[in-house]
Amino acid sequence: MASIFPSTRVRRTPFSDGVNAAGMTVCSVYNRMILPSVFASEEEDYHHLKRHVQVWDVACERQVAVQGPDARALMDLLSPRDLDRMADDQCFYMPAIDRNGGMLNDPVLVKLAEDHYWISVADSDYILYVTGVADALGLDVRVWEPDVSPLGVQGPKSDDLMARVFGDAVRDIRFFRYKRLPFQGRDLVIARSGYSKQGGFEIYIEGSDIGMPLWDALFAAGQDLNVRAGCPSTKERVEGGLLSYGNDIRQENTPFEAGLGKFVNSPRDYIGKAGLMARAEPERQIRPVEIHGDPIPAIDRAWPLMAGGRKVGQVTSASWSPDFKTNVSIGMVDRSHWAPGTTLEIETQDGMRRATVRETFWT
Amino acid sequence: MASIFPSTRVRRTPFSDGVNAAGMTVCSVYNRMILPSVFASEEEDYHHLKRHVQVWDVACERQVAVQGPDARALMDLLSPRDLDRMADDQCFYMPAIDRNGGMLNDPVLVKLAEDHYWISVADSDYILYVTGVADALGLDVRVWEPDVSPLGVQGPKSDDLMARVFGDAVRDIRFFRYKRLPFQGRDLVIARSGYSKQGGFEIYIEGSDIGMPLWDALFAAGQDLNVRAGCPSTKERVEGGLLSYGNDIRQENTPFEAGLGKFVNSPRDYIGKAGLMARAEPERQIRPVEIHGDPIPAIDRAWPLMAGGRKVGQVTSASWSPDFKTNVSIGMVDRSHWAPGTTLEIETQDGMRRATVRETFWT
Repeated sequence: MASIFPSTRVRRTPFSDGVNAAGMTVCSVYNRMILPSVFASEEEDYHHLKRHVQVWDVACERQVAVQGPDARALMDLLSPRDLDRMADDQCFYMPAIDRNGGMLNDPVLVKLAEDHYWISVADSDYILYVTGVADALGLDVRVWEPDVSPLGVQGPKSDDLMARVFGDAVRDIRFFRYKRLPFQGRDLVIARSGYSKQGGFEIYIEGSDIGMPLWDALFAAGQDLNVRAGCPSTKERVEGGLLSYGNDIRQENTPFEAGLGKFVNSPRDYIGKAGLMARAEPERQIRPVEIHGDPIPAIDRAWPLMAGGRKVGQVTSASWSPDFKTNVSIGMVDRSHWAPGTTLEIETQDGMRRATVRETFWT
Repeated sequence: MASIFPSTRVRRTPFSDGVNAAGMTVCSVYNRMILPSVFASEEEDYHHLKRHVQVWDVACERQVAVQGPDARALMDLLSPRDLDRMADDQCFYMPAIDRNGGMLNDPVLVKLAEDHYWISVADSDYILYVTGVADALGLDVRVWEPDVSPLGVQGPKSDDLMARVFGDAVRDIRFFRYKRLPFQGRDLVIARSGYSKQGGFEIYIEGSDIGMPLWDALFAAGQDLNVRAGCPSTKERVEGGLLSYGNDIRQENTPFEAGLGKFVNSPRDYIGKAGLMARAEPERQIRPVEIHGDPIPAIDRAWPLMAGGRKVGQVTSASWSPDFKTNVSIGMVDRSHWAPGTTLEIETQDGMRRATVRETFWT
C-alpha cells in the first residue's frame, strides 16, 4: 500500500491533530478530505467499536447548504422523497438522482428551517449538481459548503459518553432526529445517526475552531468508558448492510436497485421522476453475499459474480468478519440469481471462490 | 504519512498494474482515482523528468462526454471562452464557472465533432454541474463519463519515444492540437499537452483493455531513451507556474484571480457572465512567491501570507526546487501586496519564513 502525498487539495479536517495524535495508520480520501481507515488494526478497531465507544472524524461528510426563498422549491425538484412528511427536527436519508433516475449520492438531508437545509453528502460533489440546477433555473437560493464538520460518536456506550458532555437531553434524541445543544457557548446540531449499527450520534461542528476542544472534551469525559479514536469499519458496516456510495452504488444504479425504493414517495414533479418510474422494476439489486473459505484479500476492484461462466452481478465491498467467522460482502445481483440460497462463483484478484446469496445481512 | 486504504470507491486505473510494478511509493487520490505521486523520490523523479521521458498514469483526468443535438448549445452555456474560435482538432483550456463566476474546475475541452466534446477535468465532479444544467433545462444531450483514460508522455525525449510507437506524424502535432493515430487497430486521440513544462503528449486511451498494451509498448520502445514511470512533479509544476485546481484555485476564485482572464472572451450569454463581469477587477491574484531559507516542510494546508500582522494572501503549493536552489511556491496575493519585489512573511506549519513576490515563475 502506497502512502498518501501531503497536499492542500486533499484537505485536513478540524480533527486532524487529534486523529494523528491518536495514531491513524491507514486512511482514505473522501470528498477530497482525509478519512481515517485504521488506527490499531482493522480487527481491533472493529471489536472495540462493538464493545465500547469511539469518536470518529467524519468531517468528510460535507454539508451542502441550501438557503433562501426558493430553497424548498429546489429541494422539491431534487428529492424523490416526500418532504411534506419531514418533521422540523428530522434527518431524511434521501436518494439523490439525475433525470434518468441514476443515483448521484445518498445523502442525509437535515432540515434546519423551511428555507434552510443541509444535504450531508457521501463521496461525490453533489453540490455541483444542486448548483447546476439552481444556476440553470435562476432560482433565488444560495448553495454553498459551510464550515460544518460532523464528528461521530459510535458504539454501545455512546449515550453515556454524550450525556457527560451534553447532558441527559441527548438520551431523548430519537433515531434520525436532532436537537440543538450547547457546547462552549455555541448551539450544535446533534443527531442520532451514524455509519455503524452500534448506535450513536453525529455532532455537526459549526466552526472548525471548536473541533479540537470538543474532541478533547469527549476524550476527557470518556476515559473510564475506554473511549478511542475510531472510524467507519468495513467489517462492521458490511455485516450490517450499510451501503457505501462509490463502492456499492453509483450513477448507473437506481434507488430501486439499491433497495431504497421505500424512500421514493414524493408526489411532486421532481427531476428524474419519469426516468426513475420507467426503471421501477429493477433487473438487479443489492444482496448480502457470503464468500466461503479463508479470509479474502483486500478488495480493490469490483469482483464479478459468475454462474455457469456468465456474469450475473458483482461484489464491491467485502471483508472477513471476526464475529461471524466468514467473509461478508455486499453484491449487486441480477434478478435471475438473487434468490436467497443461490450458489455462485466469485472472481477475486486472488482467484475464484464459492459464494452464496443470503436472505439478510449479518446481525 | 498514513498509507491508503484499498477500496472499490477509490478506483484503480487501466495502468495500475504497470504503476505498481514500476514501484509507486506515494500516491494521491484525484477524482476518486489513484494518482501516483512518487516513484524513486520526489527529487530523483524531478531530475529524470527534465532530462529524459516519462510515462504518466493520469487516468484520473476523467472525461465528461457531452454529445447530442444540444451539445454545442450546452457548451456555449458553460464556456466563458469563445468556442467559435475553436478549430476542429483543438483543445481549449477552459475556465468552468458557476453563476457568480466562481471556478468549478479548469478543464481542457477537446472538440471531437460539432456535437461531441470531451471535458477533460481536474479534481472535481464537474460532470455533476454539467448534468444538473442539462437536466434542469431538459436539453437533448447525453452527459456521461466514458471509458477514456489519458496516459501522459512527458519530458524532452517525448517526441522521439512517441514517434517510435505512433510514427513521425506525432512530431507535427501542434501545441494543444490533436491527431487520431492508430494503435492495435484503434484510433486514439493524441494531443500535444500535459501537466509539465517539459513538453510531451497526452494519449486518450479509449477502452481500458488497451491500457497496459500501450504502456508496455512505450516502455519496450524507449529503453535506450531511459524511459521511466513518472507522475506530475510538484517541484516542476510549481517552478513553471502550472496551477492545480483544489490547491491553488477553488470555487471562491474567479478566472481573473487565477490569471486566466484571457480565456474569458465568449460573446454569448453563458451562465455566470454577469456575475463574472462584476468581478473583472480582481482584488487578489495568483503570483509566484519565493520562500527564503532551507527546504520547507511538505505543505498540507494553506499557508497565510502576512504583512504587518495582517493576512494579505496565502500559498497553496510549495516545494524546494533543486535546480533553482530555493523554495518555489504559488500564492494568491491581495492587490495591495502583489507587486513584484514585495517582501512578506509566510506562516508554515513549522514557523514563520520570509517570502518575496516575484515577477515571473521559474523557467
